[in-house]
Amino acid sequence: VSNIHTAEILSVGTELLLGNIVNTDARDISEKLSELGINVFYHTVVGDNPERLTQALETAKQRADIIITTGGLGPTCDDLTKQVLAKSFGLELYFDEEEAESIRHFFHTCHAGRPIPENNMQQAYLPVGCTKFHNLWGTAPGCAFEADGVHVLMLPGPPRECNAMLNHCAIPYLRKLSDEEIFSHTIHIFGAGESAVEEQLHRQMTELANPTLAPYAKEGEVMLRATAKAKSHAEAEAMLQPLLAEVETALGDLIYAYDVASFEASIVGLLKEKQCTLSAAESCTGGLLAQRMTSIPGASAVFRGGVTVYSNESKSRLLGIDPTLIAEHGAVSELVAREMATHMRETLETDLSVGITGLAGPDGDGSNTSVGTVFVSLASATDCFVRELHLGTGRTRLRTAAVNHAFDMVRRYLTGKPVLAEYQV
Amino acid sequence: VSNIHTAEILSVGTELLLGNIVNTDARDISEKLSELGINVFYHTVVGDNPERLTQALETAKQRADIIITTGGLGPTCDDLTKQVLAKSFGLELYFDEEEAESIRHFFHTCHAGRPIPENNMQQAYLPVGCTKFHNLWGTAPGCAFEADGVHVLMLPGPPRECNAMLNHCAIPYLRKLSDEEIFSHTIHIFGAGESAVEEQLHRQMTELANPTLAPYAKEGEVMLRATAKAKSHAEAEAMLQPLLAEVETALGDLIYAYDVASFEASIVGLLKEKQCTLSAAESCTGGLLAQRMTSIPGASAVFRGGVTVYSNESKSRLLGIDPTLIAEHGAVSELVAREMATHMRETLETDLSVGITGLAGPDGDGSNTSVGTVFVSLASATDCFVRELHLGTGRTRLRTAAVNHAFDMVRRYLTGKPVLAEYQV
Repeated sequence: VSNIHTAEILSVGTELLLGNIVNTDARDISEKLSELGINVFYHTVVGDNPERLTQALETAKQRADIIITTGGLGPTCDDLTKQVLAKSFGLELYFDEEEAESIRHFFHTCHAGRPIPENNMQQAYLPVGCTKFHNLWGTAPGCAFEADGVHVLMLPGPPRECNAMLNHCAIPYLRKLSDEEIFSHTIHIFGAGESAVEEQLHRQMTELANPTLAPYAKEGEVMLRATAKAKSHAEAEAMLQPLLAEVETALGDLIYAYDVASFEASIVGLLKEKQCTLSAAESCTGGLLAQRMTSIPGASAVFRGGVTVYSNESKSRLLGIDPTLIAEHGAVSELVAREMATHMRETLETDLSVGITGLAGPDGDGSNTSVGTVFVSLASATDCFVRELHLGTGRTRLRTAAVNHAFDMVRRYLTGKPVLAEYQV
Repeated sequence: VSNIHTAEILSVGTELLLGNIVNTDARDISEKLSELGINVFYHTVVGDNPERLTQALETAKQRADIIITTGGLGPTCDDLTKQVLAKSFGLELYFDEEEAESIRHFFHTCHAGRPIPENNMQQAYLPVGCTKFHNLWGTAPGCAFEADGVHVLMLPGPPRECNAMLNHCAIPYLRKLSDEEIFSHTIHIFGAGESAVEEQLHRQMTELANPTLAPYAKEGEVMLRATAKAKSHAEAEAMLQPLLAEVETALGDLIYAYDVASFEASIVGLLKEKQCTLSAAESCTGGLLAQRMTSIPGASAVFRGGVTVYSNESKSRLLGIDPTLIAEHGAVSELVAREMATHMRETLETDLSVGITGLAGPDGDGSNTSVGTVFVSLASATDCFVRELHLGTGRTRLRTAAVNHAFDMVRRYLTGKPVLAEYQV
């Protein structure tokens, strides 16, 4: 059996073809397959139509030895993925009493007292001989089977269910197809662009075969992924450690974390570890920092709150900043950024506080300040640091970058790194 | 020539297959094609590989008479969409001096003084006889041609460029393929689920042929789209108005807007129209309302600012709420919601102010309050309205729904509708 597999992702759902939703399932599955070292050469999307699904399936069989479907497992008459796939591979469907019981239980919990619509039970039919993927996050079970030399995996369409079953069922199934396993670490970077990182680590990124080092850009963030293939997790780790050490030597404190879900998640973790509280006074980012912090469950232990001061008056009223200072220096100025962080810190008595003021555009404010100018400040009991940034245009991009700079300053402060170190983004 | 067209979207880019990015281009194009009444039966994604792209193209030719490609038009050696498509359709490429000049100009503007890398000029090659799609948002031009009975349109991959050229070049091109044109209005609804809306408008949604009425769910919002096919815009409008009137009779003040980009965009517009200012005190939504408001350019004219009061102490310090009230009633209570909005309004002297306090979970707070309980308040000079909501679980979904309720209350207040009307979401 070859260890090199080729997968095709076949997403089923008319709502994808109508543009009602974006195919995040295919992205999420591809990302995981790439980590497992499985090639993905095609994504295909078809509607809830048996003929076109059958055709797409025949095409996929010719060019992949792993087919992963998403969608079409639910209770409505449009949900026909299992039926079409079973027929195409010559498999019978059987009624799984365990799954039926679980569907009844789920239904009773959510709709106590109401009879179960009959079509709900169609979800309990599964191909004979398949490996069941029990769905703890919804009612439709997924499954996997091998037929005609192809491994077929079926996952539900709703992204929350698809993701959970990908991680808990599909990946363990796929890992067993190889006698080697793949493990990786993600290195999160702030303060250098992709090309600068590539320059530093060109040799490792081009010459290594196992482990490997690859760049990985996602939503404006630069990351690296170090991946090793080995017989065991311990062996893979032993292969990865020297590479991670080389990366750390090359990038130093540009690395802000390893294997985290997001910058905000790493900041919440770091603040908890250091038992340190944070607050924020935001102007141009308009609550984005607060919103990203509070999107992390448990953030309330370290994030006390903040203000969105979207007018000069609110800067005075909420933070007590002297209006004449704003008039003299301008709302977008180093001094006002400094005042925002220090006043915020005093008001909420947090260990640290961040201030962000800038001109997000698209239009200027009539002053000499150019669109894209942002001042980000960090106040502690003894210091106040300010970064002056010129972040260019693009309101959303600029606001995200300004918040990331604030996170970077907090991270550097808490880990004893120079807060105003050289940075270029 | 038939007026019924079938399109396939063929996205080219290894980064899609690696799961680095999500295919928003296919969603955006599908949405527009659906508005134009063009069927989309397949999306296909292939990597930057000439053989597999050629194969995917051959398959697409068999099943579509419009093929729209995204990606692979740039300057790198991986960018081969034009070359592969020209070859597959037997067309020569020519060097377009106008496009070349524009690329040179773009490059000089961005990188003054640096020589243009030679590979940048490959973008100036286009298939002989094509309709050029000039790219005002980047360097790579797109194009369209007809060959072998198929209309082929090529758009760049970066979503900003793809979207702009879709709207400015591809849609006008596609409109000309039919002697009738399609126009639509989107009806935005808050306060009723999709099935309740369908029940009200079942006849219109199932029996009409031209104009049509179709549901349209996107990121948790319920919308309807009324579409008419006619020889002119005026004729289409005349067909649509009676249908819109029927929808308005059925749904009444559940309709919050027509043809808007988002709930927040409609609220900013409405506040401007009524010359009314807003501020917000947020607890469980942690700045999400402020962030959504300030994501709209020009929001500063009406949104003065807000506070994120993520601890009991911050509710007292920033808003001056009596700590004994919070202790007696609990942070998640009707009274505290009321206090938050009224104190916020007084602090920033805005016409209206919103307060949001709730338990977003996933964990409880040790009190009797269940996860998902949210109080949303709206204070004016004379009134304070409070909605008590039970929004279930799912931190992100719950926070979004709570902010939407606040927007709905503002909208109802400003348009003279009952602020606490019956709602069910």
